[in-house]
Amino acid sequence: MKIQEITAAELDTQVFIEEKTKEISSLVGKGLAINALSGGVDSSAVTMLGHKALGDRLKTYFIDNGIMRQDEPQRIVDLFKKLGVTVEIVDAQEKFFQALKGITDPEEKREAITQTFYKDVFGQLVKKSGAKYLLQGTILTDVDETVAGIKRQHNVFEQLGIDPQVAFGYKIIEPLVQLRKDGVRKAAQALGLPESVYNRMPFPGPALSARVIGEVTPEKIKIVRQATVIVEEELSSTKAFQYMAILHQDKVTGIRDGKRDFGLQIELRCWDSIDARKAVPTALSFNTLSGLAQRMVNEVPGVVSVTYNITNKPPSTMEAI
Amino acid sequence: MKIQEITAAELDTQVFIEEKTKEISSLVGKGLAINALSGGVDSSAVTMLGHKALGDRLKTYFIDNGIMRQDEPQRIVDLFKKLGVTVEIVDAQEKFFQALKGITDPEEKREAITQTFYKDVFGQLVKKSGAKYLLQGTILTDVDETVAGIKRQHNVFEQLGIDPQVAFGYKIIEPLVQLRKDGVRKAAQALGLPESVYNRMPFPGPALSARVIGEVTPEKIKIVRQATVIVEEELSSTKAFQYMAILHQDKVTGIRDGKRDFGLQIELRCWDSIDARKAVPTALSFNTLSGLAQRMVNEVPGVVSVTYNITNKPPSTMEAI
Repeated sequence: MKIQEITAAELDTQVFIEEKTKEISSLVGKGLAINALSGGVDSSAVTMLGHKALGDRLKTYFIDNGIMRQDEPQRIVDLFKKLGVTVEIVDAQEKFFQALKGITDPEEKREAITQTFYKDVFGQLVKKSGAKYLLQGTILTDVDETVAGIKRQHNVFEQLGIDPQVAFGYKIIEPLVQLRKDGVRKAAQALGLPESVYNRMPFPGPALSARVIGEVTPEKIKIVRQATVIVEEELSSTKAFQYMAILHQDKVTGIRDGKRDFGLQIELRCWDSIDARKAVPTALSFNTLSGLAQRMVNEVPGVVSVTYNITNKPPSTMEAI
Repeated sequence: MKIQEITAAELDTQVFIEEKTKEISSLVGKGLAINALSGGVDSSAVTMLGHKALGDRLKTYFIDNGIMRQDEPQRIVDLFKKLGVTVEIVDAQEKFFQALKGITDPEEKREAITQTFYKDVFGQLVKKSGAKYLLQGTILTDVDETVAGIKRQHNVFEQLGIDPQVAFGYKIIEPLVQLRKDGVRKAAQALGLPESVYNRMPFPGPALSARVIGEVTPEKIKIVRQATVIVEEELSSTKAFQYMAILHQDKVTGIRDGKRDFGLQIELRCWDSIDARKAVPTALSFNTLSGLAQRMVNEVPGVVSVTYNITNKPPSTMEAI
């Protein structure tokens, strides 16, 4: 089952939107569909397409996993409200933190988040909603990175805790599967989404938990969330490809009010890159770096030390874990 | 027992050297004296003074604790040999690594090193040598930082495992106790020591173990030692107050030969400072930083990530632990 790629250059957004809307309408018929919105460009574009096709018969949920950026759930809900789309926030923070408890291995963290999302939270919503149609923001790059076609969709049902044997009743709809990221951005813009969405800086699936080295706790997320606010405020004007704050597990010595204070270290990364395959640290001015460090130690409780990553990718990666 | 300070400005090095040499001679008489040389300016100055006064009746030991910089023990022995002073290297590497095993708390690491130095290694040497006179490089700042006078010397005997009740036979001689660091540097220069000694960059007592976050092992010391060679080669021309490489315990994701590789992170620090009480990170050029990072990831096995500290002291400290 070879998927026919549509490159960004050849993408006619009006034709694409019309075709995909019709396709979704005819597939779902008079049924109900469901999707999860993360605020990323893929799930945002799917949400817009689905609502164009189905209106209120698409139920869109924003799962608040507790590891989002400052005010992110409400900001996204408000944004879609302006576009006429109702999104329901599902508070699942406790479930995610419970699943992350005691886990320090980065792969296991990722797995715990995926499992909790599908099995414990979204799987339950799917079953409860009665919707048989799942809209997903899968893009061609995702397909390349996993197994293609039916096997992949089969895996989604397994992840959702829906027995693939009885999954015949369910159907996964992937309207973006012929596009790559640049095509999705183009479509998202044509769908009326604002630039903050269609040009959104890459942000990892495991959200802020990818920015905490070691065990993820509500306290650590709070710290890295505050640091992220500062980085985004200070570096948005740089137009860098991506920038981030990472909370380390290692403690380092600091000094506060003349007293020794083992404290926290925040690592900052800011990347120049074309396509994320290679990247170099942005040559930020020393003034900018000092200002960032100053704000971190003044505004983020417990932080006594701030570093800036100076390694190229490769051998570094963009994210720390 | 108030100690009479001699400031660097009022220090007449020739008078000082003559007086201290006479003082040591008359105290030790025809007896034997012993001292431990670390290669720092204090213990180097004491070694020169002691040998001026006593010649071969001062036994000088260099304790190789395994956590020194590349080739440091031999370099220091060679340097003193040129000055006519015989220094014996005592290989105590295993004892120190044994003592450091499993310890991650910075204070406990420091304590383990101190204990091993005094009780297990130097204490044994003192007893075996038959020397009753201990030459120590204590300076006035050390006295300020601990308890003054007799109590402090009493503590040294306790640390050495010499019962203070029978310690009457022993005597500690501290020829530098009226000086501060700048005075010692002046005296060291007058004593014929080279600039690499009298202007030596500050280096912590716990040596490279202060540059390893978490447990100290021979493998980790080897890594941070290699990183230190690179930092010292690349930054010696900056004339910064102090520079260092720190091996983190936190692992970060890297990519090698297209494969995910959890690897090591090295943090670099380079400080501008007058007196170490306050310090700011040196505004190194981005070229210098990139070059450093490049050498680290190419030359130090396992390193995939390098950061540069951008925090002022305070609230940072110069060293990480």
